[in-house]
Amino acid sequence: MPEISQRGLRLPSSPIRRLAPLAAAARNRGLRVYGLNIGQPDLPTPEPFWNAVQNHPHGTLDYSPSPGFEPLRIKWAQDYQRYGVALSPANVIVTNGGSEAIAFALMATTDPGDEIIVAEPMYANYITYAQMAQVKVVPLACRVEDGYALPSDDALRAAVSERTRAIFVCNPSNPTGKLLRSDEWERIEALAHEKDLFVVSDEAYRDFRYDGSRPETALARTDLKNRVVVVDTVSKRWSACGARVGALVSENEGVLSVATKCAQARLSPPSLGQIGAEALFDLPESYYDEVRREYKARRDFLHNAIVSIAGVVCPMPEGAFYLMPRLPVENAEDFCRFMLERFSHDGATVMMAPGEGFYATPGAGRNTVRLAYVLDVADLEKSVECLQRGLDVYCGS
Amino acid sequence: MPEISQRGLRLPSSPIRRLAPLAAAARNRGLRVYGLNIGQPDLPTPEPFWNAVQNHPHGTLDYSPSPGFEPLRIKWAQDYQRYGVALSPANVIVTNGGSEAIAFALMATTDPGDEIIVAEPMYANYITYAQMAQVKVVPLACRVEDGYALPSDDALRAAVSERTRAIFVCNPSNPTGKLLRSDEWERIEALAHEKDLFVVSDEAYRDFRYDGSRPETALARTDLKNRVVVVDTVSKRWSACGARVGALVSENEGVLSVATKCAQARLSPPSLGQIGAEALFDLPESYYDEVRREYKARRDFLHNAIVSIAGVVCPMPEGAFYLMPRLPVENAEDFCRFMLERFSHDGATVMMAPGEGFYATPGAGRNTVRLAYVLDVADLEKSVECLQRGLDVYCGS
Repeated sequence: MPEISQRGLRLPSSPIRRLAPLAAAARNRGLRVYGLNIGQPDLPTPEPFWNAVQNHPHGTLDYSPSPGFEPLRIKWAQDYQRYGVALSPANVIVTNGGSEAIAFALMATTDPGDEIIVAEPMYANYITYAQMAQVKVVPLACRVEDGYALPSDDALRAAVSERTRAIFVCNPSNPTGKLLRSDEWERIEALAHEKDLFVVSDEAYRDFRYDGSRPETALARTDLKNRVVVVDTVSKRWSACGARVGALVSENEGVLSVATKCAQARLSPPSLGQIGAEALFDLPESYYDEVRREYKARRDFLHNAIVSIAGVVCPMPEGAFYLMPRLPVENAEDFCRFMLERFSHDGATVMMAPGEGFYATPGAGRNTVRLAYVLDVADLEKSVECLQRGLDVYCGS
Repeated sequence: MPEISQRGLRLPSSPIRRLAPLAAAARNRGLRVYGLNIGQPDLPTPEPFWNAVQNHPHGTLDYSPSPGFEPLRIKWAQDYQRYGVALSPANVIVTNGGSEAIAFALMATTDPGDEIIVAEPMYANYITYAQMAQVKVVPLACRVEDGYALPSDDALRAAVSERTRAIFVCNPSNPTGKLLRSDEWERIEALAHEKDLFVVSDEAYRDFRYDGSRPETALARTDLKNRVVVVDTVSKRWSACGARVGALVSENEGVLSVATKCAQARLSPPSLGQIGAEALFDLPESYYDEVRREYKARRDFLHNAIVSIAGVVCPMPEGAFYLMPRLPVENAEDFCRFMLERFSHDGATVMMAPGEGFYATPGAGRNTVRLAYVLDVADLEKSVECLQRGLDVYCGS
């Protein structure tokens, strides 16, 4: 029998999703499982999405053009005016969720054997996509004690080699919730100029900022202009993960040309998701205010509750909807498994994402987890109680 | 400014889609453009699809599980009973259209520098996906004069090297419409055993056979069992290209494991398309009979009309919905451009896919085009008249 490829065998399984079978087994035992493991918003997808899909005339569900339906691209481009950037539809290539925009960005900016530098902990799938693209991820270690701040300029420069092609930023950050401060942006800009790098800016959580600052895009940084490739998506912004509609947004003609060829290879992004998404760009500002208010209340509650647990260290996240605490355990994945396999409290348990999967450095982050506050405050309260009791039992045992 | 990657620059643009701007310009000049260039069925997507999507309760449009919604996987697996194969839902990984199943199959079966062998002309995107995966496509030249039959055993063996990992088959074939005869299947089986190869079987057009023979899957060939990776899709079968729902189907545990990891990286296939697709598996047999009757009438008309044009050579296709004629021109892409840029007849013109893009061998197929019979017979009649007049003018000029 022919052998499976080495690259296939080496691909990591998702740290967020590989505990799913244990959670299913726990549910089958009758437990309620509070899911803090996955960035799946619980807020409703806004009605205009559903109305657009459901009023769509029957007939043939065609491919869209490979770079997306033109009316959607027009609205998406115009939407960047919110962030002070004037774009045309040609700057927007609609993708199968933000995920595909990551893949296209790698295809356009790197060759096999090239390197990208990424602040660590990082969105786990950068590692998977880089492996698929034969690209090495060079992590910039950020410490929980430092609030996951960018390391020193020396550390930044030490990460760059002859093969470095791009720096990836995720702002606000998945998994830490950190916002890039303006001095950190300036250091990234300086590095990009000095070392001639692309800046791939993952802005999936752009609207989720809780410090009162305005949402921002890397495309507004005029010094970076043609270096920037934005990963955008409707998934989190509008609680529409299942639509699978994202976009690669750039002013770099070469990047757009490669992304277009990649888009042609997979023919079309999903038509129904695009039809729904187009209607969402017309939502009033109050929608975003309400969503921010809800997540901010959850963040405030969850952060306060989690740092009250003895031995837990967790910086206050300023954005996205994640916390990345260090727990008083040696192996957080083992603890996550314990919670699903051998623990319950009041007929419930908690599912978390082990932190190690968000690190490219082997062994790093083993005592951390990522928590998504995608439950309401009442359920978060029960989750934290459950987590605290679980830690007591686990650490005592 | 950083440079675009070499692999990005080298990616081909779609031969099917790169003439789209010329067609748009022709339409802007007021011409009707008969689109024979793209495999976009014109038949309506069946009502159960629309009803399932449009009756779906509002709320949060969640990710599906990475390998697809379980009820859909159950129905998809059961559907293989039609073809005499007993599968479980675990054998079905739902993908973003058949395209993504091709990418996953390459990831599981090949490493960079490996080779795949493919009968030529071939589905153009095999070439693009292989390039993205750093895999070499070794073509098996099939000649229009031989009805695009598989070449000799000597030619098959000559195509295999130490690095060959898989043979790709597309049955019925896009772009030629050819069905694999049973002696051709046996030769492929023998080769797969002798050289220890995977068989990636693209069955996007499985139900479209016009010779009275029953639809078949490579998974039913018990001699191949664990070597087979099927690329399946709802796109053509149910005229639902925009749903972007396909599947990788296999009994090979290693392939399924890699495909699952690839699926996790992109989180989820589109949820709405899956919700609609699930309802389609319950269609009665009469649906397929009617669809086949319609396409068969078109094939009969178009083949007869096209071989009546002086200098055109075209085997009778037995399946799919394509013809791949040789035209009496030197450069078919130039002729296709001529038709869009400089020709009209009765206020109309014809868009075709230049054949060269379906060849991995440089320069091969330059005098061929692919025609998709995705218009009704009345429009096909006008298309052929237009094509014939266009050839007269082009060849006379």
